Amino acid sequence: MKDESKKKLIVGFQGVPGSFGEEALLAYFGDSVCTKALDTFEDIFKKLIGQEIDFGVLPIENSSTGAITEVYDLLNQYDCSIIGEVCLPIQHHLMGIRGASIADIREVYSHPQGFEQSSKFLKQYPNWKLIPYYNTAKSAEWVQKNNQKHMGAIASEKAAKLYNLQILAFGINSNQHNTTRFIIISREQYMDEESDKISIVLSTPHRAGSLYRALRHFAENQINMLKIESRPIPDKPWEYFFYIDFEGNLNHPPVQKAIQSMRKDSTYFKILGNYKKTV
Amino acid sequence: MKDESKKKLIVGFQGVPGSFGEEALLAYFGDSVCTKALDTFEDIFKKLIGQEIDFGVLPIENSSTGAITEVYDLLNQYDCSIIGEVCLPIQHHLMGIRGASIADIREVYSHPQGFEQSSKFLKQYPNWKLIPYYNTAKSAEWVQKNNQKHMGAIASEKAAKLYNLQILAFGINSNQHNTTRFIIISREQYMDEESDKISIVLSTPHRAGSLYRALRHFAENQINMLKIESRPIPDKPWEYFFYIDFEGNLNHPPVQKAIQSMRKDSTYFKILGNYKKTV
Repeated sequence: MKDESKKKLIVGFQGVPGSFGEEALLAYFGDSVCTKALDTFEDIFKKLIGQEIDFGVLPIENSSTGAITEVYDLLNQYDCSIIGEVCLPIQHHLMGIRGASIADIREVYSHPQGFEQSSKFLKQYPNWKLIPYYNTAKSAEWVQKNNQKHMGAIASEKAAKLYNLQILAFGINSNQHNTTRFIIISREQYMDEESDKISIVLSTPHRAGSLYRALRHFAENQINMLKIESRPIPDKPWEYFFYIDFEGNLNHPPVQKAIQSMRKDSTYFKILGNYKKTV
Repeated sequence: MKDESKKKLIVGFQGVPGSFGEEALLAYFGDSVCTKALDTFEDIFKKLIGQEIDFGVLPIENSSTGAITEVYDLLNQYDCSIIGEVCLPIQHHLMGIRGASIADIREVYSHPQGFEQSSKFLKQYPNWKLIPYYNTAKSAEWVQKNNQKHMGAIASEKAAKLYNLQILAFGINSNQHNTTRFIIISREQYMDEESDKISIVLSTPHRAGSLYRALRHFAENQINMLKIESRPIPDKPWEYFFYIDFEGNLNHPPVQKAIQSMRKDSTYFKILGNYKKTV
């Protein structure tokens, strides 16, 4: 996949230049693809379906704050396929305009995840007003535009460079192992013999023991379940879609057997992709 | 619990008067308790531990948007016990100052959940600037304070009354079954023979099949698992705490047997509470 005429590929990410999404995109595809910054996660799915982009890159999970639930919901809603994943260490920095110092800061802009991932640092400054913004890089851009010493942003080093801001505090994320896992999506399913991770979504009948009955097919076929995530079914209060990642390749007989049995035990079943795992 | 000298009880909720948290509190305890509005979810745990309040009321899950993950993390972090739950239908309304009409609105304030739960309605007005705010009731208060016709808030009917705002669009939540489940927490464990729902949190060894091995004790003891939620373990990327709700009473032998076996299969195990289920 990575070697096929990269130059013509257009790959979408959410945010503005300097976003972590763009970094993940470049880490996966290299820098010879065309990158396209889009406003929302849903825009990535729409532009992909509309053939305006060839692939999309989306954050799915952060090691400190958990699932990006909107992306889970969109994966179920749109018919796209996960073809790969990439993990990106996330370092947050506090930045301000040139000449500003940390004592000048009175209000800080960032994506809510930026605040959440830097919560321990921010507790030292209880008087700062924290203003949620579209994404980390956009908040750096906003601080540059306003050109006020009392305004700070929490964003990446790349964003600081791009928007000519000065880093006032380095690596302020509470967890030094802070990593975000991104997925790569495509219109068509793509897999090969190296694909060793499968993502599915299913729902089970609303009665006692039905989730357990579906999950038991993993154990019976010696398949290792990696992750399970619950999301509500909007029109059915307290019923859930279960998003499950497990090890395997769709061409292997035990995997095929488990999937066949799980389909029977589910009221809804969809394969989201089979790709190479990085964690 | 509900009948013991209610008048002296102080119960905390997050938000300001008119918040959904306050409504849930009154639905559970009735209106003869003292209510205490607190700034953050964590404040509720802190004031409870510090004996400044007797009980706390916290949203744990919305039927449209899913888990309130911060509350899950806090339940694990603090030693408090879930003693009950209450479900509150959530109706969101768009409101503005007296004399404003929907055509005047240019910016709208609400909690991000208010925007998310009203997303279909908001898509009709792509030019409105959506500004995330602390909570729905506080955004109503903010619109009242500013007294500008172009400012709107998404909040409850009670908040509209309290802050003397006019409802410009009724029931704008995308899902008409929109319900939030709230939990009641206490310093001490409290349960009786009517308690029929148990919440636990556990983590399992980081190796193949370990989650399945822990869950199988439910099936083996004919226990109905109601919900499973994964949350990251901050210092161990891609390892999880599993929050599990299941039916049962801690005094029943099959439940005791299942818990004993699950403890053995877990690297971490904590009972969060045993209480009466409402859904």
